[in-house]
Formats: sequence, C-alpha cells, structure tokens
Amino acid sequence: MAGTDRSQPAIGGGPAVVLVRPQLAENIGASARAMANFGLSELRLVAPRDGWPNPKAEATASGADAILAGARVFDDLHSATADLRYFIATTARPREMAKPVLSPREAAGELRRHHHASHSCGVVFGPERAGLDNDEAALAPAICEIAGNPAFRSLNLAQAVLLLSYEWFQAVAPASRPSAAPPATASNLEFFLDRLEQALDKAGFLHPPEKRPGMARNVRNIFRRLQPVEQELRTLQGILSALLRPQGREVG
Amino acid sequence: MAGTDRSQPAIGGGPAVVLVRPQLAENIGASARAMANFGLSELRLVAPRDGWPNPKAEATASGADAILAGARVFDDLHSATADLRYFIATTARPREMAKPVLSPREAAGELRRHHHASHSCGVVFGPERAGLDNDEAALAPAICEIAGNPAFRSLNLAQAVLLLSYEWFQAVAPASRPSAAPPATASNLEFFLDRLEQALDKAGFLHPPEKRPGMARNVRNIFRRLQPVEQELRTLQGILSALLRPQGREVG
Repeated sequence: MAGTDRSQPAIGGGPAVVLVRPQLAENIGASARAMANFGLSELRLVAPRDGWPNPKAEATASGADAILAGARVFDDLHSATADLRYFIATTARPREMAKPVLSPREAAGELRRHHHASHSCGVVFGPERAGLDNDEAALAPAICEIAGNPAFRSLNLAQAVLLLSYEWFQAVAPASRPSAAPPATASNLEFFLDRLEQALDKAGFLHPPEKRPGMARNVRNIFRRLQPVEQELRTLQGILSALLRPQGREVG
Repeated sequence: MAGTDRSQPAIGGGPAVVLVRPQLAENIGASARAMANFGLSELRLVAPRDGWPNPKAEATASGADAILAGARVFDDLHSATADLRYFIATTARPREMAKPVLSPREAAGELRRHHHASHSCGVVFGPERAGLDNDEAALAPAICEIAGNPAFRSLNLAQAVLLLSYEWFQAVAPASRPSAAPPATASNLEFFLDRLEQALDKAGFLHPPEKRPGMARNVRNIFRRLQPVEQELRTLQGILSALLRPQGREVG
C-alpha cells in the first residue's frame, strides 16, 4: 500500500518536498528523516539517478520509512509540480531573476500562508552538485536562498531539506514548552529579603551606617535578579535558618 | 600549529561549539562542516570516545579542516567551559529545571547579546544517544530545546549543530540579498494600462458598455498585482505593439 500510510509523523501534511534528479539514495533517505523530524510527510522524486525504490535510502532514513514508501516518482519537475498552487525553488546562488528571493524563514511564512488557505504547496530542491537548472528554477513563482558563510558553502542536500523543514515547523507549530515553575511572588521574596536584612544587621554586615542603604539595596537586588521559584525560595530560607543556628554561626 | 589557523571561515568567532563525549568521529567532522557553513569556527571536544585527532573526522568535514585542526580536547565539561561567561546546553527533552528553556532561535538571540558584549560564549551538545547527563545540563545557565515532531525524534548530532549554527548566522548576519530590480513606477505602469485599454476598446473586448467599467478594472488589476519591473513592462509594451501590428491581428 505504498503511498497511503502517512500516519507516521504526528504532524502530517504540509508542503511536498520535491527532490529533482537526486544522485545518492542515501541523501533521499536522510531527507526523509529530516522531513519526519519536523512533521513533513510528502516526498516527490524527479528522475532519481539510481532508480526507485532504492534500499540504500532506508539505511539513512532512520525509521522514516512511511515517507519513503509514499514517495512518488515523476519524469520532470513540470509534472511533479503540476497539481501545486504554490511552490518555492531552493538555490544556493540565486540567478538574476525578477522574482522574490526569500530566506528559509520567509519561505516558510509564505508556505504557511498558502497552506492555511488550503493551497497545495511544495519546496523544490535541485541535484546535489549542480542544483536546479535555470529553466527549472524559472518554473517557481519564488526562490529560496539559504544564506551562509560565503567562504564555505557546502550545504548537503539533506541539510538543505532539514533547514527548510525546521523553518516550516517553526512557522506552523507553536512552541510547546515544558511548563516551568513560576517565579516566587514578590511578597514571598521580599519576606525572605527582610529576614535576610535583619540577620545581616545583627551580624554587623551592613556597616558603616552611611553605606547601609546602598549595601542593603545591592543585597536585595542580587536575589531579585535571580527570580527564584518558590522551591528555591524555600531553599534560601532554609539556608538562612541553618546559618543562623549557633553551630552555623561558629563555622561562619 | 593546531589551534592557530582560524582563517578559513570568513565570518569567524562566535560561540564555541562544545561536543561532550562524541562517539563517532564522522559526527565531529560533520559538525565542523555545519559550523563552517554558518560562520562558526571554535570547536571543543570533551573526552571524544575514539580519541583525537581522528582521520575519520576529516572525511565528513568537507574541507572544514581548519576547525578540526583547531579543536581543543578537555577531560570534562567543567574544564571545557571554564573560560566561558555564557553557555547554553542543548537537549532533546528538557528536565524539570528552574532555568530558561530556549528555542534555537531564542538561544541564538541570547548568544548574540552576550557575544556583542564581548562575553565569551558557547553551545554544548551531548553524546549521540544519551545526550547530556543531568549534572552536565545543570552547569549551564540556560537550556536549548530543539522542538520537533513529537512522534519522530531522531535529530543527529551534526544536524543539531547545524540548526544552532544556522540560527546563529540568522541572528548575526544581516541577510545580503542580490539586489532585485525594482518594480516599475506607477506612472509607467498606468501608461501601459491606458494603452492596453485603448487597444481593447478598439478591438471590441470591453463590451457590453454597462460591463465596461468592471471589465477594465479587472484587466488593470491583473497587471497591477503582477508588479512588473521596468524590464518586464517594456516586454509587455512590446507584446502589445506586436499584437497590434497587422500580421499580429491576423493571427489573433
């Protein structure tokens, strides 16, 4: 049932990834892995050099087998993009063309805009060394350039797919962060700081008197900047209590 | 003279990349390549499993040899980060820690802030399978989580280095785009549209009269939305002239 099992990635759909004349099946597999990492699932291959399917792709797909199994093969870029309403051609060096040159981030934004409007879309990648030829790049309404260190350009095909897939994920998936413990309330923090200041007064730390206000403010600011969570604040209270006990004092 | 030739990447400096107990030298080489792609140059290795230097790293570095030659080896993460004033630990699954969990983009922003203040900084990556252990992650003041498809997490070490390096480059390198030709002036565009409209009137296209205003507006809007550049506008004028010539009319 090749082509039907798209259930593997939890976040399915998204733009089709179109690889034009890919040379190494390993790169096709690594591209599928990169897609799966960031929730893309539809792979299209234009005239893969070594034929398709190719077992070498599975070795680098790291389990993204459903994407490989669902990949469709086309004779040329025109037929591979015939049903798409918006697609972007990636290139390392944009030619002088009178069409927008987008960064990967901007490309992801455009793709999201079309995707949310239920337009079928895609991203096109050229062969490993040569990239897309001029006629192929001209087919797309927009170009995406992956800018990098001008003195060292060696972005691999699967890395380019990774970066576009990553930006797609950033564009559509709201970041789900682990819920961090909230900072302590100001009232609890100031309660601790009052206690600390009293202890420092008793210990003769806030001395001489004319410098006391500035010193006290500095001490308080250290802990305010820390923004301790409630648990940390309890720890700090415990530390203060421990140091104020007679044995704590003896050591200090 | 290992460690001194950092001339290779044009955009040098930036945060150190710290790989903790990397297992495969191939991944060290691929990480160096990813760094070079996006202008990072300082590599630090903590207890690489198979020793260092390792010729297998060069095979995947794709020419980022200066970074490999300059890599320094440390016994543990503490000594590898001793001189750094700010560093971020990357992790696939952030533990419950009372410290900020940043996206790669946010991490790059923080790194840029410290870098611009001339604070030495770094990004720490754990070993291929296990990632950083809890004590190691705890050393960093902030954590970076690379969020992705929750159903398919298989980001390779060098891919993680690539994404952080990419975000670093986005954060510090203003996009240098090829200067696109500017859209034609409104006056030149409207001059063409007036000419087109006259021609369509003569050809009887804007008919019947009660529909003429809407039809003319639609025709104009097609070309306004196109936002042709001057060269394209000259081409359109040429097309119109050609179609208006007697032989053009005969064909049309």
